[in-house]
Amino acid sequence: MPSLLIRNVRPLGASPVDLLVRDGRIAETGAALSAPSDAAVEEGAGALLLPGLVEGHTHLDKTLWGMDWYRNEVGASLVDKIENERAFRHASGHDAAAQSLVLAKAFLALGTTRLRTHVDVDTQAGLRHLEGTLRTRQALRDVQQIQVVAFPQSGLLGRPGTAELLDQALAQGADLLGGLDPCAIDVDPVRSLDVLFGIADRHQRPLDIHLHEPGAMGAFSLDLILQRTEALGMQGKVAISHGFCLGDVGERERDALLARMARLGVVLITSAPPSRSVPPLMACRKAGVTVLGGNDGIRDTWSPYGNPDMLERAMLIGMRYNLRRDDEIDVALDTVTHAGARGCGFEAYGLEAGCRADLVLVDAQTPAQAVVSRPVRKLVVAGGRVVARNGVLQADVASL
Amino acid sequence: MPSLLIRNVRPLGASPVDLLVRDGRIAETGAALSAPSDAAVEEGAGALLLPGLVEGHTHLDKTLWGMDWYRNEVGASLVDKIENERAFRHASGHDAAAQSLVLAKAFLALGTTRLRTHVDVDTQAGLRHLEGTLRTRQALRDVQQIQVVAFPQSGLLGRPGTAELLDQALAQGADLLGGLDPCAIDVDPVRSLDVLFGIADRHQRPLDIHLHEPGAMGAFSLDLILQRTEALGMQGKVAISHGFCLGDVGERERDALLARMARLGVVLITSAPPSRSVPPLMACRKAGVTVLGGNDGIRDTWSPYGNPDMLERAMLIGMRYNLRRDDEIDVALDTVTHAGARGCGFEAYGLEAGCRADLVLVDAQTPAQAVVSRPVRKLVVAGGRVVARNGVLQADVASL
Ligand SMILES: [Zn+2]
Ligand SMILES: [Zn+2]
Repeated sequence: MPSLLIRNVRPLGASPVDLLVRDGRIAETGAALSAPSDAAVEEGAGALLLPGLVEGHTHLDKTLWGMDWYRNEVGASLVDKIENERAFRHASGHDAAAQSLVLAKAFLALGTTRLRTHVDVDTQAGLRHLEGTLRTRQALRDVQQIQVVAFPQSGLLGRPGTAELLDQALAQGADLLGGLDPCAIDVDPVRSLDVLFGIADRHQRPLDIHLHEPGAMGAFSLDLILQRTEALGMQGKVAISHGFCLGDVGERERDALLARMARLGVVLITSAPPSRSVPPLMACRKAGVTVLGGNDGIRDTWSPYGNPDMLERAMLIGMRYNLRRDDEIDVALDTVTHAGARGCGFEAYGLEAGCRADLVLVDAQTPAQAVVSRPVRKLVVAGGRVVARNGVLQADVASL
Repeated sequence: MPSLLIRNVRPLGASPVDLLVRDGRIAETGAALSAPSDAAVEEGAGALLLPGLVEGHTHLDKTLWGMDWYRNEVGASLVDKIENERAFRHASGHDAAAQSLVLAKAFLALGTTRLRTHVDVDTQAGLRHLEGTLRTRQALRDVQQIQVVAFPQSGLLGRPGTAELLDQALAQGADLLGGLDPCAIDVDPVRSLDVLFGIADRHQRPLDIHLHEPGAMGAFSLDLILQRTEALGMQGKVAISHGFCLGDVGERERDALLARMARLGVVLITSAPPSRSVPPLMACRKAGVTVLGGNDGIRDTWSPYGNPDMLERAMLIGMRYNLRRDDEIDVALDTVTHAGARGCGFEAYGLEAGCRADLVLVDAQTPAQAVVSRPVRKLVVAGGRVVARNGVLQADVASL
């Protein structure tokens, strides 16, 4: 791979520097670097430089991105939505491989170079969604790091055979094991979590558990999760997605839970939904709990909202938490950059020498302005390679 | 003004029609209309046709839109924010005429043809913001209807002379009288509202009152407002902006207030902030209370958020109220179209023959898709005149 010299960019709004990329990594940053003879040169023209954006929680396999508009007429309950999705897939021949690829590329064009996606594993779809999404992970391996979570969308205990499928999913290449509401969905929280942690432990894989349960019920489930995290030595290997209960329970109970999460290295992933309680971002960070941002589903049969633009997600997170000062908006951006990478365990992340060269250039004076304005991505570099200009993928990447 | 024939557009997603504009109004819609000899012809190519968008609550005079990024380092309290704005204006020589014009044009380019703006009136700024904004209203009179609310940002009672300034503001051309938190800011709610309603009554002008007060305090103020609305015969002439208290109080008290509001024709205007309680949209509509959408401030010293794109505001309203079904998202769109116009009293609004020809064309299959995707505005027509293409104002409008 030829070297790449990017001139005159401002890392996170700092003073202008040049940046040299070699072998897919950042080799050097500094003033007026000279271009190696083999180097391509990009003129940054004073653009703001961000590290590649990180999507901490989405569902690539569910999306209808790029398809005809789906008219949502589904009922209000969770069961309605699950049944509706099942019926739609059956009727439409929904193709998880094709759809996950379309959306992953849309993410990349907008500067997201690392993402974590949950894929449905259940007794009806079997491992079809996993296989489709692994195909996308493989196709994009040089330009986007994708973590795949095997996710029991229909619950773990309700349909016999699901645990075995999750077992197979991990054997076939899923990076993490997913979980879902052990009280509300599985109705037998202790057995549900024992089975779940058992599978994770057997495969020595991290867990990322959807926990929508509100209030006391969610706090109860969270306590069971933390107990097992400790007992099995899974410190630093467990993520809670949503964790709405942490926005419901009283401050003392919440802070006790956050202290345990911090001690066990359990991270929180939020889409910051404006219509629900959410974990208190600043209190979580203060307690030492890493908080990551994510869309959750994007334009699927569950919801039409969501967008592969992680700067937009940062903006929504900023609005949800009423972050108005520039230093606060930097925190919103952190949830889709450094905290996102740290929480997912993506390595060699950042703008320092030695990091993987995942870079985004935008016209903005400060990081806060980039979040609020969501400007066009002038240049996206992934793994040292220019993959998109002005929001459009390069032809060789578009054809992957 | 020459006639305008727009071919092949789908009004709010209905079957394709042609649309003839004459003398600034919609003259006719139907299949395969023939173009009058003097008519300019625009090819709609099957685009979705929306009526001009409506901004129900913003602050054109405060905005920093188009300026260098303002680094927000202000404290958390209301007083901090008011003092900070005062200091900034003093230091920067903030020009309300220039800034309001820049933002109003940005609204127009994105399809907003009618808007209501509050302008600060206080003993320090005097009527400077009013005069600046009236200049903008005048400059854009042929292409954008602007309602100006004389708004006592620093309270009505605290600084002697404010009531007199509001009086002058109405005499000099403000369309409405504004108010602000009679308990929390003015501390003497009865006297505050008596003075306020007195001015409105004397000038026979409608009222639009910022009511941020939460819970029981806000409900108490709202009750006082409704009493005076009835006593002074101001039915259909009062708007409550924000009304957070309606999202706090119990259902019975809330429904009693909503029933009175409906009976008195008092409307609600919301920016649907994700970090605060909000009036329950569907319950309000069910009770017969018109709910309009608005940004509130846009990129000012109070907050960096907000955007002249009213489709984005509709999306944020949809997300705030968890509106996912297409028929629910149509309600979100209604808050920035028909309900917006009805609530502000903008006349001749809509897509029927006889309405003012304020039209927006976008590439979207359905209104819900337009809300969620916020596509480029292919064509904006205001008062029968093409004012913008693909998000860019026509030169003759840009130079107004
Ligand atoms: Zn999810
Ligand atoms: Zn306001």
